[in-house]
Amino acid sequence: MNRRTFLGTAGGGGLLLQTRRSAAQATAQAVHPGVWEFRLGTPEKITPVATRRYPPAEAGLAKMPVVASCPVSVSGSGSRRGYLVWIPLGANEIVYGLGLQLQSLIQRGLKKKLRVNADPKMDTGDSHAPTPFYVTTAGYGVLIDTARYATFYCGGKQRKGQAAAGAQASAAIGENALPAAYRRRRFGEASEVLVEIPEAEGVDLYVFGGPTMRDAVARYNLFSGGGALPPRWGLGVWYRMKGDFNQEATLALAAEFRARHMPCDVIGLEPGWQTHAYSCTYVWDKKFPDPAGMIRQLDSAGYHVNLWEHAFTNPASPIHEALIAHSGDYEVWGGLVPDFLDPEARKIFGGFHEKEHVALGVSGYKLDECDNSDFTGNWSWPEIARFPSGADGEQMHCLFGLRYQDALEAVFEGRKQRTYGLVRSSGALAAPYPYVLYSDLYDHREFVRGVVNMGFSGILWTPELRNAESTEDLLRRLQSVVLSPLAQIDAWYIKNPPWKQVERKANNADQLMPGWEEIEAKCRSVMELRMRLVPYLHAAFVRYHRSGVPPFRALVMDAPEDPATWAIDDQYMAGEALLVAPMFAGESGRAVYLPAGDWFDFWSGRRYGGRQRIEIQPPLEQIPIFVKSGTILPLAQPTPDTRDAGSFRLEVRVYGERPAAATLYEDDDSGAPSLAEVTLAWDPAAKTGTIRGAARYDAVAWTPIA
Amino acid sequence: MNRRTFLGTAGGGGLLLQTRRSAAQATAQAVHPGVWEFRLGTPEKITPVATRRYPPAEAGLAKMPVVASCPVSVSGSGSRRGYLVWIPLGANEIVYGLGLQLQSLIQRGLKKKLRVNADPKMDTGDSHAPTPFYVTTAGYGVLIDTARYATFYCGGKQRKGQAAAGAQASAAIGENALPAAYRRRRFGEASEVLVEIPEAEGVDLYVFGGPTMRDAVARYNLFSGGGALPPRWGLGVWYRMKGDFNQEATLALAAEFRARHMPCDVIGLEPGWQTHAYSCTYVWDKKFPDPAGMIRQLDSAGYHVNLWEHAFTNPASPIHEALIAHSGDYEVWGGLVPDFLDPEARKIFGGFHEKEHVALGVSGYKLDECDNSDFTGNWSWPEIARFPSGADGEQMHCLFGLRYQDALEAVFEGRKQRTYGLVRSSGALAAPYPYVLYSDLYDHREFVRGVVNMGFSGILWTPELRNAESTEDLLRRLQSVVLSPLAQIDAWYIKNPPWKQVERKANNADQLMPGWEEIEAKCRSVMELRMRLVPYLHAAFVRYHRSGVPPFRALVMDAPEDPATWAIDDQYMAGEALLVAPMFAGESGRAVYLPAGDWFDFWSGRRYGGRQRIEIQPPLEQIPIFVKSGTILPLAQPTPDTRDAGSFRLEVRVYGERPAAATLYEDDDSGAPSLAEVTLAWDPAAKTGTIRGAARYDAVAWTPIA
Repeated sequence: MNRRTFLGTAGGGGLLLQTRRSAAQATAQAVHPGVWEFRLGTPEKITPVATRRYPPAEAGLAKMPVVASCPVSVSGSGSRRGYLVWIPLGANEIVYGLGLQLQSLIQRGLKKKLRVNADPKMDTGDSHAPTPFYVTTAGYGVLIDTARYATFYCGGKQRKGQAAAGAQASAAIGENALPAAYRRRRFGEASEVLVEIPEAEGVDLYVFGGPTMRDAVARYNLFSGGGALPPRWGLGVWYRMKGDFNQEATLALAAEFRARHMPCDVIGLEPGWQTHAYSCTYVWDKKFPDPAGMIRQLDSAGYHVNLWEHAFTNPASPIHEALIAHSGDYEVWGGLVPDFLDPEARKIFGGFHEKEHVALGVSGYKLDECDNSDFTGNWSWPEIARFPSGADGEQMHCLFGLRYQDALEAVFEGRKQRTYGLVRSSGALAAPYPYVLYSDLYDHREFVRGVVNMGFSGILWTPELRNAESTEDLLRRLQSVVLSPLAQIDAWYIKNPPWKQVERKANNADQLMPGWEEIEAKCRSVMELRMRLVPYLHAAFVRYHRSGVPPFRALVMDAPEDPATWAIDDQYMAGEALLVAPMFAGESGRAVYLPAGDWFDFWSGRRYGGRQRIEIQPPLEQIPIFVKSGTILPLAQPTPDTRDAGSFRLEVRVYGERPAAATLYEDDDSGAPSLAEVTLAWDPAAKTGTIRGAARYDAVAWTPIA
Repeated sequence: MNRRTFLGTAGGGGLLLQTRRSAAQATAQAVHPGVWEFRLGTPEKITPVATRRYPPAEAGLAKMPVVASCPVSVSGSGSRRGYLVWIPLGANEIVYGLGLQLQSLIQRGLKKKLRVNADPKMDTGDSHAPTPFYVTTAGYGVLIDTARYATFYCGGKQRKGQAAAGAQASAAIGENALPAAYRRRRFGEASEVLVEIPEAEGVDLYVFGGPTMRDAVARYNLFSGGGALPPRWGLGVWYRMKGDFNQEATLALAAEFRARHMPCDVIGLEPGWQTHAYSCTYVWDKKFPDPAGMIRQLDSAGYHVNLWEHAFTNPASPIHEALIAHSGDYEVWGGLVPDFLDPEARKIFGGFHEKEHVALGVSGYKLDECDNSDFTGNWSWPEIARFPSGADGEQMHCLFGLRYQDALEAVFEGRKQRTYGLVRSSGALAAPYPYVLYSDLYDHREFVRGVVNMGFSGILWTPELRNAESTEDLLRRLQSVVLSPLAQIDAWYIKNPPWKQVERKANNADQLMPGWEEIEAKCRSVMELRMRLVPYLHAAFVRYHRSGVPPFRALVMDAPEDPATWAIDDQYMAGEALLVAPMFAGESGRAVYLPAGDWFDFWSGRRYGGRQRIEIQPPLEQIPIFVKSGTILPLAQPTPDTRDAGSFRLEVRVYGERPAAATLYEDDDSGAPSLAEVTLAWDPAAKTGTIRGAARYDAVAWTPIA
């Protein structure tokens, strides 16, 4: 059995193409190592690549494996409908990506129209963060450089006569490994990806070589500018205060967290901090009489402050008048929609934020409602809107989240300061942005699928915790949260922390659950798990930053040759070595698939062989985690925040017989950190560990597990 | 208070328009009495009007009230995005229509993209039968003649500076009468309807004058060709047999209905009658060894036979080869997609149906899956498909249901025979088609909203009964079914009638509910209500046919001057005189709004004054119905089928003091019935009733109720 068979044959649909209309097959131009650009027709002027802030990470790209020639052929043709592109798909070549797809992992066989929308409730491609980029198990990725609601038909559409002409259907190799629902998607046939871009007369298309799917994703992320590197404090626990809290209530709850040893690095303020939200003034309300003092006080307790906002600028905002000439022709909630494609709009907007917030110590933002509203009450601007930059409303919906982040990136970069925040919409080339996606949706399985899926598309996602249906639900959700890019408890509509009362109404009536202290203790323990993992996760983000490998990703990205991984949407890799299999409320056990290699239960140390499905019954307190054999896993002390010296004191676990050295990075959270390498190594013969290059890190204990 | 204030001011947005881009205001051409056509830019060649089968009903249009001038102004402009049209909306001018919208009644303030799709689960405009036609309380209707997925922004989008410029917001007059959720839709402001038609370089737009909303709808229906007139038997009860039933099982259950006195006029066969379905051969399977004999036998028992199918033609079908040159370039389920815009395709397809089914006595069809599949597994052809007629896949999705009906209309019309059937997709100008829409969705409230909404758009809809969650649910659903255009029990996945067992699994295991005979008796009584109403409903359809007034419609259509009717989506008018307020499982009572005039409880005869909301607690056996004072209501005997002589023997109820004469029509169900008028009149002084012009009808009892 050779790997090629498993991975599918890129270009296998060539035969089909020859019979296809009058389309021109395009020729590729190599633009970076392993990256090819196809110019098809006359591309539009406003696209993700044309409006990008970050240049490709050339140094990272130069280190990627050599790919000799472009792995796929591409054809296109234009019409009044727009521009149509097709790319062959081989038999058993599985497609992933297209951004934040909460309802499906495998895209092959699906039709996705990439409309930017809040709270997508059906699997149609509507998404907070659709991304016109996909990768396949054949080991390449494709970016369609468009700011349009493109439609992707990811294989499976049958052309007339195709069956009759005897197009060879290979056996669908993965079928026995896949749930039955996938069988009708005809994975075993050669097919094609069709992409229709409305309005356009042409498009630029980029192909990213592998040779593996993981390499292709990394190459796309490096082309995007390299992965985001959050400051270390961003990897601690986040807690968003209730929307109507004032300064006093905020400080009181922050003090309570320290008194009760609940870890927390970032305090988020929700809409109530402004004089007017929906639309926004960006001006501190009198409920916060001394924001600078409050931020100083929080800082002295180890906290950072994050502010909620959206971009719709209220007439009462000091920047409203200046933005009139730099905003679209429709308003939202009575506020201007800044034209963030216009540098002047970004300057006005960002400048005010710097002066009024960042200069006071605000560490970052939660950028709400920068998506669209087809499912949520039609509040946003219409697709037919016009912006001074020349963008129409559809293009602006595709780019608004990205360019909104640009406006604030300029502020922090100008101050040589790092930030980490949240954003409700993103898109193509998003990897460098230290902003994590979130949603008002709340299905736990979908939230976990978001963590699984995010790694295909250069985006980050948090399965944030709000209220819960039960204490079991609370714990299971919190466990997923701490094993995600941003560990956020978003209590914007509850007064007390959810561990005191999971039910919203009772919570707001101060009716606490009997015995809540026990639940609090269990939550503390879960949050402490996050704190212990900060050094490990930070290193994973440094890899994302430098080499483009996503810190959280689907199992298939590391094992595309194993069809048993193809459809797994409830397990994921965190960093190089941890396999996470979250539990969901109402379930006492679950099946976990372990790919090739040996694995150790993180909690018990029990060893399992790979390429098998096991059944486990984890206790409520534990989220199932499996550590790959050969791993050196450093765990920090559980601390209240990441500045605490304990966060650098490591207990090191050594899994398996011949562990590879592990690398951590010293990070001062500054805008241009040196990121000095710290190496942890284990001598199996001497059974001793060594730490090298450390200034702040220290290894206080070594425990071999085998 | 003058009526104009209530109805809103058509053209009230004129001020806005003057500041709007560089659009050309178009001039209207009167094309029929009270109908104006605007030609904007260069319209596409393939549109609903351009491909229509039925000409406007000139005779009916000539009888409509005179409207002196076009009630609205219209502007448009083109761009690479397609063509954009805007039409002013006055303050408090409420918008309805856009086809089968199961999730919303009032369209004002919503954005709807009219994509053809099966099982739409969100209120985005996706619909089995989207219709680019809307009406407003200002008393006019607008048809956008497009076969594209047009986007309608029905008011409420705020242009920059609009608020600042002091655009006068009237008080939102209906606000106190409307549920709170409507308040944020800003009904009190002048606004505009924006319609964006993708791909197009222009469009024809038709305005239908009133003066009332009801007149505008009637005028649209007459322009479409007049309303459908089902044969009398079509108004009886329909029952679809389980999909795997053979000839013997079909005949056995049909015999059981007669033996147990369960009314039924039409037996529907589901996919199993063919040698292959998904895709279809249209060839009788050996499970039905003698279809002609079976149909004869059923006919002798008073039954008509209806066949399920879809249009995707399997390679094993005798017409497959002939259709190859007359079908699209993509297949569905391995079957050809006939190009129904091509007369030759319709001829091949219809001809085979006539020879193999209709000549044997088949009375009609259920045309499934002629919509699209974005929410249901992506089985249909892509929008980028091409058809020999020149249509692309998007246009074909918009027209496929209509032109598919055409293929079969030609068969029945050629035989001078009437039909009544079901179809899963329809669109513009659908009024003349004797086909009723249905869906695989199953929310009872949505199903009732479909009955309320259908009348705005020239379409018919059945809230069919399948299985049920309880016997209460069964009865409440059945009650809605018998007060709808097509009273169908669709037992395609249950072996026994649902009154023997509501739960699907138990039903198919022949585990009948204890005491099912009592439930059967209650269902019989509900079905008998339908049979008693056949003469009345038939007359309502004749009015639809001749004067365009929908037989089922929202309360607001008869009382647009009463804001309390604007948002009512769970009550509707059936014919001129019956107000229906269905009950839903789990509710012991409900509020009912009675518009102006006096009303009588159909069951108790109790009299109520109008313009009030009453609370009722109807027993499980009764669906709330209120009869308008001044009505002569003829009720037939409850019969097993509509051919039974008892169906013409009338017990006549006389409601109120000065009832207007009622008209019924003698109908021989032929292709060209004479429809002789039968007049029922009441002499209040003499307290006697008279019937005139009757050949088959007879009035056997008169009961005054006051």
